[in-house]
Amino acid sequence: YAPYGGGYPGTYGAQQLAANDPMWGYFTAIAGQDGEIDAEELQRCLTQSGFTGGYSPFSLDTCRIMIAMLDRDFTGKMGFNEFKELFTALNGWKQNFMMFDQDRSGSIEHNEMTQAVNAMGYRISPQAVNAIIKRYNKGGRIFFDDYVACCVKLRALSDNFKRRDTMQQGSVTFPYDDFIMCTMAI
Amino acid sequence: YAPYGGGYPGTYGAQQLAANDPMWGYFTAIAGQDGEIDAEELQRCLTQSGFTGGYSPFSLDTCRIMIAMLDRDFTGKMGFNEFKELFTALNGWKQNFMMFDQDRSGSIEHNEMTQAVNAMGYRISPQAVNAIIKRYNKGGRIFFDDYVACCVKLRALSDNFKRRDTMQQGSVTFPYDDFIMCTMAI
Repeated sequence: YAPYGGGYPGTYGAQQLAANDPMWGYFTAIAGQDGEIDAEELQRCLTQSGFTGGYSPFSLDTCRIMIAMLDRDFTGKMGFNEFKELFTALNGWKQNFMMFDQDRSGSIEHNEMTQAVNAMGYRISPQAVNAIIKRYNKGGRIFFDDYVACCVKLRALSDNFKRRDTMQQGSVTFPYDDFIMCTMAI
Repeated sequence: YAPYGGGYPGTYGAQQLAANDPMWGYFTAIAGQDGEIDAEELQRCLTQSGFTGGYSPFSLDTCRIMIAMLDRDFTGKMGFNEFKELFTALNGWKQNFMMFDQDRSGSIEHNEMTQAVNAMGYRISPQAVNAIIKRYNKGGRIFFDDYVACCVKLRALSDNFKRRDTMQQGSVTFPYDDFIMCTMAI
């Protein structure tokens, strides 16, 4: 079972698997030469694929934080595995949103947003939810694009927090520089 | 020297002072009925006043984080004192940006952004600056609107951090809920 054929079996295997994945062709077509997806490419892809459906297309800013959420090596770009991870997350959030946007208006209300956040399993206080809604509402309503931006940030910040909360105590001591790095990057 | 005329001398005095302020008339014209400024009103005001000059107008999203930065009572709106505080900050950031954007292209480069952040007096590591640039660059350059969004967030996050670092130890222990509240709100 020594590596046969020489080279880099790990990477080779991953490429093989990827090539059999129905999303692989799609990914490579978008990623182009460099084999990675940046924010502009992601925006184009999410618009062309019709992901947002009847909702407004994602803003470039929302696409940038989608990339940042999964960009653990800070390249500003996204590989195939991150791309698939993002699609899974986006599908979940979209379903969650549509559950509350029953009249398909493209936006949800204050109390529906509170329920949507709770439905995602985050245990955050009503004050924190209020602060989030204050930030993301437009004329009292939360639109799909802002809702997704909010989901992305909430997940990325929670991930950053959990990664540091190794003893699972529910609190983390941040040196200033680390605090800035993990909050400004998203 | 007892309060004369009855009522609420503190508030009354503040109104008196405000009425003599050259910006007061401007503020009330924008704020309208409710006497406070929301993100849409702020965007209109910053565009009409010609603040951005030759640079692109601020996006609504950048205006929303400007409000959030000073919105200590989470109303999503801005009173007169906050409005003046914001203008002072914006003028400083604009001057700083123009110092680096010598050819008035409307954007600055990676290493200029590093210098700009340092010039603002933040002591953050090169890794943190890199993470910030990865998030805010478009095609390798940082545009004025994104630069200001970045300044606003950096200041708001640093303020939130400092307010909790009462012993000035350079590190803060955040419970999860407080971490989410003070990072998601901006």
